[in-house]
Amino acid sequence: MPPADPLQLWATVEYDGTDFFGFQVQAQERTVQGEIERALEEITGGETRVVGAGRTDRGVHARGQVIRFKAAWQHSLPELHRALNAVLADDVAILEMGRAAEGFHPRFSAQSRAYRYTILNQPWPSPLHRRRAWHVRQDLDVERMTRASQCLIGTQDFATFGRPPEPDHSQVTVRTVMRAEWQAQEPVLTFDIEANAFLYRMVRSIVGTLVLVGSGALTVDDFQALLAARERCLVKQVAPAQGLCLMQVNYAGREGVLQ
Amino acid sequence: MPPADPLQLWATVEYDGTDFFGFQVQAQERTVQGEIERALEEITGGETRVVGAGRTDRGVHARGQVIRFKAAWQHSLPELHRALNAVLADDVAILEMGRAAEGFHPRFSAQSRAYRYTILNQPWPSPLHRRRAWHVRQDLDVERMTRASQCLIGTQDFATFGRPPEPDHSQVTVRTVMRAEWQAQEPVLTFDIEANAFLYRMVRSIVGTLVLVGSGALTVDDFQALLAARERCLVKQVAPAQGLCLMQVNYAGREGVLQ
Repeated sequence: MPPADPLQLWATVEYDGTDFFGFQVQAQERTVQGEIERALEEITGGETRVVGAGRTDRGVHARGQVIRFKAAWQHSLPELHRALNAVLADDVAILEMGRAAEGFHPRFSAQSRAYRYTILNQPWPSPLHRRRAWHVRQDLDVERMTRASQCLIGTQDFATFGRPPEPDHSQVTVRTVMRAEWQAQEPVLTFDIEANAFLYRMVRSIVGTLVLVGSGALTVDDFQALLAARERCLVKQVAPAQGLCLMQVNYAGREGVLQ
Repeated sequence: MPPADPLQLWATVEYDGTDFFGFQVQAQERTVQGEIERALEEITGGETRVVGAGRTDRGVHARGQVIRFKAAWQHSLPELHRALNAVLADDVAILEMGRAAEGFHPRFSAQSRAYRYTILNQPWPSPLHRRRAWHVRQDLDVERMTRASQCLIGTQDFATFGRPPEPDHSQVTVRTVMRAEWQAQEPVLTFDIEANAFLYRMVRSIVGTLVLVGSGALTVDDFQALLAARERCLVKQVAPAQGLCLMQVNYAGREGVLQ
């Protein structure tokens, strides 16, 4: 029997970023993309290339990364889904899977991305939160951080908070932020931010700076002035990777794009 | 200057049990007790013995383990607290600390203990929950599990669900359960149980059996009959360690016992 045409598939992926050197494949290091490609090759016997919606950094987690890949597979999709999860290491899992529409691209077809940043705000460290949150000892004023976050909403130049991610050579640093909200469930603070797209390290640079507002080192007006200055060297604190999680990637008419 | 009399102290301790061989010290393995004793010896220069309220098993977590220990320390308690957390590995931390009243014993003075068991109930595995929850694929009926749990309330013989923990040679398996409640925040189910004391593996044996009720393998009446039979061999499923967390140990008149 001749080999079947490979299927064009999309999937949502969850991972614990702690033990990965980020999403994007690297020659020597363990990456999420590399781990999924290895699992696909083990199951289908053919080489394949996984494309992701966002190249999360080393240590960053995901609950809703979206990927696209081809797979030569003659059985059902639920069988492929189960086989993949059985073969993948336990710090990465396929949550949903389906056929991708013609022309679907996880990054270029995306309309927006949502990230969540988690802070543990208490004087002592927490062993049970340490892999998923940034431990900040100084008491943070969430109300001040909320007011500063409102400056982020809208379409504006975010050059202060990052550069365009590789391999984007456009140098365009204008982005549209639709949501930037803090929630407090003491001692845990979460920051949800959604934008059409993000600059490199943008969420972590914003959170690091907002924490300076929350601790009183900066005022809300200082934050607004930093944003307006469009100078990346003004960011004095970048929040660590383990507090960040890619929650969701949104597509227009999901049914049309993801079959 | 002659050495000061050692202080009698209590502390609450949080730990991520994943990389410990349980609480109780062992010759060859890494344990919570051993880790805290090592940190105390490094800071105070003297040998010390840590006594805990509950000997959690390998892989079990704690948010409110209570310990007692002696420390020869001439500075303030907040300084000892900070020094301990600085020296401890990052999977164990001291949350609170104070002077212990004469005669205070973390285990014998305790009036009750509260444990929480966490289940992730969805078809696919979750990398972000895997260290803290039991992944159960079959759909669980929380309402049935809640009804079965109500049989647990009160003073009765729990021999079906465990034996007295070492070094208790009494063979008494009667315990008093004050609370046994399920909460669902789909796909996460949590079971909170509080009792005057617990038998060895009691919570995990109860949860393993309640999951058989939730999946339909046992009825609520079956569960009640198992409890009444007082036969440990009737437990067909023990829930795994990583879902269990010692939340709190309660003492009568905390101020009197813990100075």
